[in-house]
Amino acid sequence: MEPVFEFSIDFASVGPNGRMHRLHEQLRAAILDQRLLPGAELPSTRRVATAYGIARNTVIAAYDLLVAEGYVVTRAGAKAVVADLGARPAARRRARLEDDRLNPQWRLPAWTTTSHATDAWTPGFRLGTPEHRHFPFDIWRRLLARAFNSRHPASFGYQDPHGRPRLRAAIAQHVSFARAVACSADDVVVTSGAQQAFDLLARVLVTPGRTKVAIEDPGYPPLRTAMAAAGAQLVPVPVDDEGLRVDQLPNDVRIVYVTPSHQFPTGVAMSMPRRTALLAFARRHGAVIIEDDYDGEFRYGNRPLDALQTLDRDASVLYVGTFSKSLFPSLRVGYVAAPAWAREALAAVKECADTTGNVQVQDALAHFILDGHLARHVRKMRKVYAERRQAMLDGLAQELHPWLQPIPSEAGIHLSTSYRDAGDVEATRWIMSKVRQHASGAQSISDFAMNNTHDMGIVFGIGCIEADAVRDALRRLAVSLKRR
Amino acid sequence: MEPVFEFSIDFASVGPNGRMHRLHEQLRAAILDQRLLPGAELPSTRRVATAYGIARNTVIAAYDLLVAEGYVVTRAGAKAVVADLGARPAARRRARLEDDRLNPQWRLPAWTTTSHATDAWTPGFRLGTPEHRHFPFDIWRRLLARAFNSRHPASFGYQDPHGRPRLRAAIAQHVSFARAVACSADDVVVTSGAQQAFDLLARVLVTPGRTKVAIEDPGYPPLRTAMAAAGAQLVPVPVDDEGLRVDQLPNDVRIVYVTPSHQFPTGVAMSMPRRTALLAFARRHGAVIIEDDYDGEFRYGNRPLDALQTLDRDASVLYVGTFSKSLFPSLRVGYVAAPAWAREALAAVKECADTTGNVQVQDALAHFILDGHLARHVRKMRKVYAERRQAMLDGLAQELHPWLQPIPSEAGIHLSTSYRDAGDVEATRWIMSKVRQHASGAQSISDFAMNNTHDMGIVFGIGCIEADAVRDALRRLAVSLKRR
Repeated sequence: MEPVFEFSIDFASVGPNGRMHRLHEQLRAAILDQRLLPGAELPSTRRVATAYGIARNTVIAAYDLLVAEGYVVTRAGAKAVVADLGARPAARRRARLEDDRLNPQWRLPAWTTTSHATDAWTPGFRLGTPEHRHFPFDIWRRLLARAFNSRHPASFGYQDPHGRPRLRAAIAQHVSFARAVACSADDVVVTSGAQQAFDLLARVLVTPGRTKVAIEDPGYPPLRTAMAAAGAQLVPVPVDDEGLRVDQLPNDVRIVYVTPSHQFPTGVAMSMPRRTALLAFARRHGAVIIEDDYDGEFRYGNRPLDALQTLDRDASVLYVGTFSKSLFPSLRVGYVAAPAWAREALAAVKECADTTGNVQVQDALAHFILDGHLARHVRKMRKVYAERRQAMLDGLAQELHPWLQPIPSEAGIHLSTSYRDAGDVEATRWIMSKVRQHASGAQSISDFAMNNTHDMGIVFGIGCIEADAVRDALRRLAVSLKRR
Repeated sequence: MEPVFEFSIDFASVGPNGRMHRLHEQLRAAILDQRLLPGAELPSTRRVATAYGIARNTVIAAYDLLVAEGYVVTRAGAKAVVADLGARPAARRRARLEDDRLNPQWRLPAWTTTSHATDAWTPGFRLGTPEHRHFPFDIWRRLLARAFNSRHPASFGYQDPHGRPRLRAAIAQHVSFARAVACSADDVVVTSGAQQAFDLLARVLVTPGRTKVAIEDPGYPPLRTAMAAAGAQLVPVPVDDEGLRVDQLPNDVRIVYVTPSHQFPTGVAMSMPRRTALLAFARRHGAVIIEDDYDGEFRYGNRPLDALQTLDRDASVLYVGTFSKSLFPSLRVGYVAAPAWAREALAAVKECADTTGNVQVQDALAHFILDGHLARHVRKMRKVYAERRQAMLDGLAQELHPWLQPIPSEAGIHLSTSYRDAGDVEATRWIMSKVRQHASGAQSISDFAMNNTHDMGIVFGIGCIEADAVRDALRRLAVSLKRR
């Protein structure tokens, strides 16, 4: 029998129970040693099973673990291929994470992102970071201090894992009003930022090794981390100028993650036909939709399209919101508006994860919303961001016109651009290198891609950079680009 | 072939991949319908595999899932038995959690506890709740307000998942001084309470379906929840008056969870020979130890025994601390002092779980510790709790002497008692019913047991009840007990 790999796989001295791990280890070593190169197709599980006389399920399990760890990527309807680890800084961590006392899944989380969290803080066109300088700190401090006035013992003990009742009511009111999400206090589960919402949802919705999760490609890496950590099989689905390519969803996908208001990172809004098609897909296949509305409060155009949650008639949408963009990330408060069928499981996993959130922060936030401070702050910031966005659009229409064009977008605190000549790979690399030099914080859209390695363009955060600084940076960038 | 169950298991119409789930579903249904009764031994996996002509691994996987879900319990060296679900309130939730869009593990988390979190707040002898009335709220408010003075943009953005550097340094200083734990700032990972520490540790240390975790029996239910949720096989190990019965640890256990300073719930301190034996066990078998030191700051006797972490020479101990007892639970700050081999994986899973904690709370806490307020508050509260504890001990030595005796203990904010005549089951039930009436919040030790169903005694929280109220309650209890 012809060998299926160009190196030997040794199953000597392991019993049936050890074969999956042996196969996984040897394939992982081959990928790390580059005996299997990025982009190489893996042989089918059937072929491997036959060649080595092992159960096909064993091969499937080993492949799944490689996918979960980020060594291998799968595409809808195509063979699994070796991932490009070289591009991922986490791959370098290997030596320190290799300890056999660790769950293999966490020995090399090649799919973890340390983009925002461990870097030294750089200002500029940084993504996902809102402006904190206009935040009403005095009001917040007063509300936080007031939260300690309640000396009811329950305020200092353990709490309902769903979150503080008053905050749940305040969130329901806010999201109903601002986003037309159909939602009452009972539907809300408060989380520690949107990331905890994703992690809890992954844990309750994903059956490890079985559940296929469709993700946007390019898309939000920390969501992928949470899904992969829960044992999901990730299915990257391309995004175009109407959002997720719903027609490319494999039928066996059970969860679809989308950012319909403001696709991360391209910024496009999902069109109404796509929204309808996605809800129909969920209905037809019993799938659920995770709608991540991370910065939809900041919109600059006409009335926005209704949220998927608003349009949903099948209790299939789990709507995730956060205060990381409307207030600030280090507050760590987000939420899920969940259908009844998911709510108790969500509360149970929240209780398992960390019992509950900080009570005084939740109480202060409840008052901040109910007293109208959130709506006022969002209105103010919309104007601030609109000015920065306009400075970006002006620069793109004028001095940067030969190289970049804006990707149409009506919301949010980042703005994406595509290359005018995306086919000229050398030119796009050179443009990106100049952007790194003169517009620090901006990132290549391909940084967020899984399979979609075609370099689409550049994404600029407008959250923490003043309009004047935008203009200066774009002018300097244009000067340096003209020098070629 | 003789059937192994007294009901039929139907594998018709499922392929090899579906057999595990079919077997799991049918056994679960039988347990819920009480066709399999609590305490019934399950036939061996080998016997089931042979009888139905399926792979033994399939049966093992189905059994493991039942264990993880709490339907089945395993004992060291014995057969798996059906759990007693009737005793667990969560079993009633079934109907609402049953939705096939949920991961089966979270459809019926029979092992979740809602003890503290969802009940209406009752005062009295409540467990695990410290006194908040002596907390220096003015200082805390000032420090929290001051945390907003830092207008460095990084304070409002995303953070290092390990936690704020200053807080990590403050915790290292505190724990080195107060508990002789060998620890520097780099070793500390800040978590959202001890529960998140358990959950993150479970996720990085447990390989789902493979890792056996020894837990104290009786022991702390939320720890069990976190381990089971991560796919651990729980191995309950009895506790006696020297702590965990180390001699009863099965050799294939990879994680041992203990509360050596103040066993939860019995209150005993782990003896030095047991500590040495446990560390030797870990060394011999490559196991790791999770040392939960939840309320060891409050000690009333001589110099306490060294922490396991202090004695460890093999980087096998992960020390978990919390500010839930020394400050208050709704603060939600805990930490792990972790050996180098575990630290990056812990930070990676923390980032996946919720990115980071609330920054201003962490900054305020850092100053609270570094300015000496924590040490001062702990000293003050030790005196407050000592008085309440003495009131308990006096009542037990005097009016309650015929029925209850204290279990020796030198630390913490609860005190356990054993029945003088534990053999008289009717009497112990009657005593417990009177305790419920006159000493609300106190719980039967058997509430925390898994296999150890023998009713050992009663545990009284002394955190949130004044000494006078202790005396009154015990006096009323004695009067009612004399009436029999």
